Amino acid sequence: MDKFRVAVLGATGLVGQKFVSLLSSHKMFELVYLTASERSAGKRYREAVNWILNDELSENVGEIRLYTNEELLTRRDFDIAFTALPSEEAEVVESKLLEMGKVVVSNSSNWRMDPFIPLLNPEVNADHIYLLRSQNNFKGKIMKVPNCTSAILSLSLKPLMNRFGVRKVIVTTMQALSGAGLTGVPSMFIVDNLIPYIQGEEEKVENEPRKILGSFGLKGIQPAGFEIFATTTRVPVLYGHTESVLVELRDKAESTEEIIQAFRDHSWNKIADLSLPTAPSEPIIVKKENDRPQPRLDRVYGNGMSISIGRIRLDLTGSVLRYVVLGDNIIRGAAGTGVLIAELYAELNKKGKI
Amino acid sequence: MDKFRVAVLGATGLVGQKFVSLLSSHKMFELVYLTASERSAGKRYREAVNWILNDELSENVGEIRLYTNEELLTRRDFDIAFTALPSEEAEVVESKLLEMGKVVVSNSSNWRMDPFIPLLNPEVNADHIYLLRSQNNFKGKIMKVPNCTSAILSLSLKPLMNRFGVRKVIVTTMQALSGAGLTGVPSMFIVDNLIPYIQGEEEKVENEPRKILGSFGLKGIQPAGFEIFATTTRVPVLYGHTESVLVELRDKAESTEEIIQAFRDHSWNKIADLSLPTAPSEPIIVKKENDRPQPRLDRVYGNGMSISIGRIRLDLTGSVLRYVVLGDNIIRGAAGTGVLIAELYAELNKKGKI
Amino acid sequence: MDKFRVAVLGATGLVGQKFVSLLSSHKMFELVYLTASERSAGKRYREAVNWILNDELSENVGEIRLYTNEELLTRRDFDIAFTALPSEEAEVVESKLLEMGKVVVSNSSNWRMDPFIPLLNPEVNADHIYLLRSQNNFKGKIMKVPNCTSAILSLSLKPLMNRFGVRKVIVTTMQALSGAGLTGVPSMFIVDNLIPYIQGEEEKVENEPRKILGSFGLKGIQPAGFEIFATTTRVPVLYGHTESVLVELRDKAESTEEIIQAFRDHSWNKIADLSLPTAPSEPIIVKKENDRPQPRLDRVYGNGMSISIGRIRLDLTGSVLRYVVLGDNIIRGAAGTGVLIAELYAELNKKGKI
Amino acid sequence: MDKFRVAVLGATGLVGQKFVSLLSSHKMFELVYLTASERSAGKRYREAVNWILNDELSENVGEIRLYTNEELLTRRDFDIAFTALPSEEAEVVESKLLEMGKVVVSNSSNWRMDPFIPLLNPEVNADHIYLLRSQNNFKGKIMKVPNCTSAILSLSLKPLMNRFGVRKVIVTTMQALSGAGLTGVPSMFIVDNLIPYIQGEEEKVENEPRKILGSFGLKGIQPAGFEIFATTTRVPVLYGHTESVLVELRDKAESTEEIIQAFRDHSWNKIADLSLPTAPSEPIIVKKENDRPQPRLDRVYGNGMSISIGRIRLDLTGSVLRYVVLGDNIIRGAAGTGVLIAELYAELNKKGKI
Repeated sequence: MDKFRVAVLGATGLVGQKFVSLLSSHKMFELVYLTASERSAGKRYREAVNWILNDELSENVGEIRLYTNEELLTRRDFDIAFTALPSEEAEVVESKLLEMGKVVVSNSSNWRMDPFIPLLNPEVNADHIYLLRSQNNFKGKIMKVPNCTSAILSLSLKPLMNRFGVRKVIVTTMQALSGAGLTGVPSMFIVDNLIPYIQGEEEKVENEPRKILGSFGLKGIQPAGFEIFATTTRVPVLYGHTESVLVELRDKAESTEEIIQAFRDHSWNKIADLSLPTAPSEPIIVKKENDRPQPRLDRVYGNGMSISIGRIRLDLTGSVLRYVVLGDNIIRGAAGTGVLIAELYAELNKKGKI
Repeated sequence: MDKFRVAVLGATGLVGQKFVSLLSSHKMFELVYLTASERSAGKRYREAVNWILNDELSENVGEIRLYTNEELLTRRDFDIAFTALPSEEAEVVESKLLEMGKVVVSNSSNWRMDPFIPLLNPEVNADHIYLLRSQNNFKGKIMKVPNCTSAILSLSLKPLMNRFGVRKVIVTTMQALSGAGLTGVPSMFIVDNLIPYIQGEEEKVENEPRKILGSFGLKGIQPAGFEIFATTTRVPVLYGHTESVLVELRDKAESTEEIIQAFRDHSWNKIADLSLPTAPSEPIIVKKENDRPQPRLDRVYGNGMSISIGRIRLDLTGSVLRYVVLGDNIIRGAAGTGVLIAELYAELNKKGKI
Repeated sequence: MDKFRVAVLGATGLVGQKFVSLLSSHKMFELVYLTASERSAGKRYREAVNWILNDELSENVGEIRLYTNEELLTRRDFDIAFTALPSEEAEVVESKLLEMGKVVVSNSSNWRMDPFIPLLNPEVNADHIYLLRSQNNFKGKIMKVPNCTSAILSLSLKPLMNRFGVRKVIVTTMQALSGAGLTGVPSMFIVDNLIPYIQGEEEKVENEPRKILGSFGLKGIQPAGFEIFATTTRVPVLYGHTESVLVELRDKAESTEEIIQAFRDHSWNKIADLSLPTAPSEPIIVKKENDRPQPRLDRVYGNGMSISIGRIRLDLTGSVLRYVVLGDNIIRGAAGTGVLIAELYAELNKKGKI
Repeated sequence: MDKFRVAVLGATGLVGQKFVSLLSSHKMFELVYLTASERSAGKRYREAVNWILNDELSENVGEIRLYTNEELLTRRDFDIAFTALPSEEAEVVESKLLEMGKVVVSNSSNWRMDPFIPLLNPEVNADHIYLLRSQNNFKGKIMKVPNCTSAILSLSLKPLMNRFGVRKVIVTTMQALSGAGLTGVPSMFIVDNLIPYIQGEEEKVENEPRKILGSFGLKGIQPAGFEIFATTTRVPVLYGHTESVLVELRDKAESTEEIIQAFRDHSWNKIADLSLPTAPSEPIIVKKENDRPQPRLDRVYGNGMSISIGRIRLDLTGSVLRYVVLGDNIIRGAAGTGVLIAELYAELNKKGKI
C-alpha cells in the first residue's frame, strides 16, 4: 500500500519530537520532511535536536536534513503536514499549506474554535471530520488537535454526557512540565514549588471540550450547552496532566458502580471498526485503588493514548460526581492524537468518504 | 511576669519540632517538658531528634531530657500541654491530662468535631474559646487546632461569609509533603509524580471549616450551613498547602475588586486588641500577580501565619468566585495556630475571663 | 526444554518486584514461589505488593499466593532461589536453602567478600562461577550479586585493567533513591537536597570491585591489587547511579580515543557465546556528548543492563583518566545481574560444566 | 559616616537580586543605581524583576528606575560598581568603568586569572587586595569575586595548606540549579535527573583556588603549586554547592581529630579585626553527623557566608584526606563575597591603606 508522505513542522520541540517518534516507522505514513528554526536548518535532525525522549531516535530519521518552514513551502512532494508551531507562526504557515492544497493536522491553538474546522478527539467526535467537506475556501484541508487538558477532559466527559447528561463542570488541573515544552519552565521556578497559573490555558479548557462534545448545526459545530469552570496549575511532574473534576449530572446516577459502568461500557464511535493503529483498545482505564491515577505510574496505558480515571465519588443526591482523570499530555494530549487524526483521515480518504 | 510552664508531647515529629522552635524563647511560655517514643526517652532532645527545620535548635532546649508520655503524666509542675500525637494515642493521653487538670492545646484529630470542644482558628472564631466554660466533666480544659487545610480554607472563607454569604464550596488541594510528617511520603512515591489522595483528609476539610465558621447553639457549636466538596492531593512541595477554591456566593459581588476589598478590609475579631505575639499583622495577603501564590515564594508571610490569596476571578453573574489560597501547613496549619491558641487562652485567663 | 522452577524471596520490595518482572515470562525459568513478610503472607501477590514499576504485572504472577520464607523452606519443588532480603535475614534463610540443596542467587550483602563464594558480574568474571566446584560444605550452591555501585564500576574498570592496568581509583557516586528500596528515603529528606552518605556503601564499593576483578588463588579469589577511595551520596533521582571516576593508569594512554577504543573493543569473556537472554549486546555504551551520561536519559540501554560512559578526559601525562559512568541500579545493579547469573548457571549446568 | 554610593549592574538576575538584597540597608553602602537589559530599562525595579528570593524586596529599592549599562556609564555620582554580567558584556562595561575611575567589584569571570587583579576570598587572601596598588594603567580599581565552587573549595583548603601542605586535590561537585541563574536549567532537563557537565566550570575550579591560595611574586600572584582535578555536575537542588574532596597532604595528619582542629582553629587573616559586617564569625562549620553537610539544611550558616564540612576521613597512611564541603553558591559563592570584598576595600580605603 502506498504511504502518505508527511512532514513535521517544528520537529525539534517536544511535541515535534514525539511526532517524529510516532511517525518514524508508521505503516500508513512516510516521514519525509522536518522543519526547524533558521538556526537549525541545514543540519541533520540528529545534530540539531536535543532529543529528550526515551524512545530511540531511528537511524534514518536522524539523518534527515532540517528545512525552515519557508523552504518546505517550496516543496510539493508531500501530502500531510503535522504542525507543532507557536500559534502565531502556525497561522501564517498553515494558511500557505492550505493554499498549496496540503492536508494539515495542526497541534497549534489558532482557529481551534472555528466552527467549520474540526477539533478532533477521534473516539469522541470522529464524525466532526465531515466538516472537511465544507472547507471550500482553500484547496487543502485542516484538522485541529485539541489542547492537551481538553483532550483528556473531553474523553472523560463523553460517556457521562451520553448516559446522564452534564449540567456543569468544575475542574482544577495539575499539569506536567512538558506541557510548556522543552524549556518552558525553568527549574528554579518549580523545584519545591507549583505555579497556579498557565497562560491562556483556562480559556481553552473552558471552551474546547464543549466544541469537541458539540453537535452539527447550521453554522458548523454547535458547542455542548454546559459551563466549565477551570483552574489550571503547573506541578513538578514530567509527563501526565492530572485533573480533579466535579460534574453536576443532569440525571442522577444510582451509584459509583453505575458511573464505572458508564466509563467502561461506553461504545465509542465507529472508529473502532477502522482499526487505526494508534487507537487504544481501551480509551478509558478505570482505577479502583484509592490513590490512583498517578502520573508516573499511570501515564503509560495504551502507549499513552488511554486516559485513566479514579477516585470516583458520588454525593448523596446522586447528581454531584467527582473524579480524577489523568492522561499523557504529549501523546493523548498532542502528538498521539494528531497521528490518530491523520490515520482517521487517511482511512476515510482511501474509502472515498472524504 | 510569670510564664506558663508548658510541655510538648510528640516533640521529635515535624509538628513537634515546630512547637519546640516556636516555644523555645516565648515571652509567655517556658518549655519544660518534651516527650517522645519509648525508643528516644531518656536521651537528650538534641540527640534523639532528626532536626529538619532551618530554625536553629536552641542550646538549652537541646539539652532537655525526653520523657515518655507516661512519665510526663506523673509530673504535676506544668500548666499547658501541646500535643502532636497520632490521634489514637492522643485520645488516651489527652483524657489523662484533662483528669489531671491540665490545659491541653491539641493538634490531633480526635474530638475535633465535638460541639463542646472549641476548634480554634483564632482570627476567625476566637469567641468559640468560651466553650471552655461548659467543659465541666473533667478538671482540665481542651482546645483543638484545626486540620491544616481547614485552617487555611476557613481563614479565607470568613470575610466572604460575612460580606456575601456562602452557599457552596468546591475545593481541590495540592498539599505539601510535610503534611504527612517527617517520613510519611517516601521519595520513590512522589518524585516526578503526585498522589491524588490523602487518607481521611477530605472528610476533615468538608467538616472542620463549617464548625470553625459555625455559631453558638443550644448544643454547642452549630456548623455553618453550606456544603464543601473537597478533593485532596499530595504534590512534591516541602511546605505550603495550595487550595484551588470555587465559592458560590449567596449575594452577588460586583467585581473582583470588591472581593479583594472584602479580604483586605475584613475586621478580624477582637484578638487584634490582645496583641498576641504569634498573631500576624495581616492574616490575609492578597497577591495581584497572575501566577501567585506559590508555595516556595509565599509561605513565608507573617512568619508563616498569614495566608496568601491570588487568582481571584468572578464569573459574569457575580456569584461564582474562584481563587487560590496558600498557607504554611506546619505553622498556620498546625504548630503556629496551636501557639496562638495558647496565647489567647493565657491572655484571657490572666484577665479572668476563662 | 524443561524450565528451572524458581522462587523469589522478598518479592514485594523494589528489587523483588524487578526480579518478578524479569522472571514472569522467562524462557529458562518458571516463577513458582514468592515470599514476603508475615503481614503479606497468604495474600495474592497482586493484593500485597505496592507495584511501582512501569513494567506491567503479569496476570498469573499477580495471582500467586505469598508465602513466608519459613513456609517456603518446607517446600521442595523448586530449583533456584533468588533472594532480595535484608542481609541479616538472608544469612539465616540462605543457610537453610543451602542445606536443602538449593541453588541460591543472592542479592543480599552477607558473605559477598567470602573468597569461595563467587561475586559475579558475568561479563567481567563469569569464570569465577567455577568456585562453585569447591562449595562442598553444604548441599546447595550460592552465588552473589554485587552491590549496585560496584557492579557498574567494575564493568567500567575491566577494559581499563586489561589494556592499561589500574593503579588507583577515586570515585564519588550520585546514587538513585531506588537504591534504598521502596521507602528508604523519605521525601522530606531529599527534595531540594542531597545526602552525602549511604550507610555501609563505601566499604562495599572499596572492596567488591577488587574481588570481582580479582583472580583465582590458593585461597579462593585474590582481589585485584589496587586501592579504591569512594565517597557515596544520595541524590533526588529515581533510577540510575552516576559515578564520577578518576583512575590512575599503570601504563599511559595516548589519547582519549585510545580509551574509547578500550571501552568499545574490549572482548568480554566467553559468556557472549552462550547467548544468555539477559546479556546486553553492548555492555558499555560510550557517549560522546559533553553532557552525558544522564540517569533519566541513559539508564535504558540494553534494557537497563548496559552501562554508559562519558566525559572521558585524560590528563597531559596520559596516566590520569577521568570519566563518568552510569548504570541502572535495579537492573544492572541488582535484579538484572541476578537473572543473568542464573542464566549463566543454568546454561553451564545443562552443559554439565557445573 | 558617609556611605559609598553603589551601583549593581545586572540587577534583575539571580546574583543581581542577592546583591540588591544585601545592599538594601547596608551601613557602609547606599544603593543608588541598578541596571538591566534594554527591555527592562525605564521600568521600576519592582516591575521588571522576577523576584525569587525569600528576602523581602525593600520598598524604596523596588522604586528605583532601571538604567541600561550605557546610561549608567554617563553618570558620575557613584563610587562602587558591583557587576553581575555575562563575562563578554562585563569585559566591555568594566573597562569603561575603570576608565571612569570607578571601583569595580566584579562577579564576572573575565580577567579572574590576571595575576595583577586580585581574586578575593577575603578570609583566605585579603592581603591580595594590595595588588590594587599596582593597578595603574587605568584610573579605577578592580577586584574579582571567585567562581562559586572555587570560593567554597579554597576556603576549605586554606587551613589544610597551612597546617599540612597540599600535594594534590581531586574534587567532584554537585552544584545547585541557581548556579546557572534564574532560567539556566530548564526543569525538563533536571527533574529525576542530573547533568554531569557544566560548561567552563572545571577549568575555573582547577585554576582559581590555586590563585586564591597563591602568593605574591614578581609577576603578581604566583599560584599555589598543587594540581586540582575537577569534575563538576548539576543536581536538582536550589541553592548550595556540595563538593566531594580528596586531598593528598604533604605532611601526614595523625587523626581526623587533628584535621577537625585544623579547620576549627585556623586563625583567619586579620580581616577579623576589621569587623566587616558580612564576615561570618565562623567561616568553617565542622559537622560531626555522618550524613552532613546537606544543602537544604546547612546552606544557612553565617547567613550563607559560612561553609560547612563533614564526612572527614583520613586513610591509614595519614596522607589521604577526604571530606565533603558545602556552601551557598549565591552568597559565599557570589554576592555575599562580593559585598565582603567591597567592605574590605571600603575599610582599608578609609584607613588610607589603599
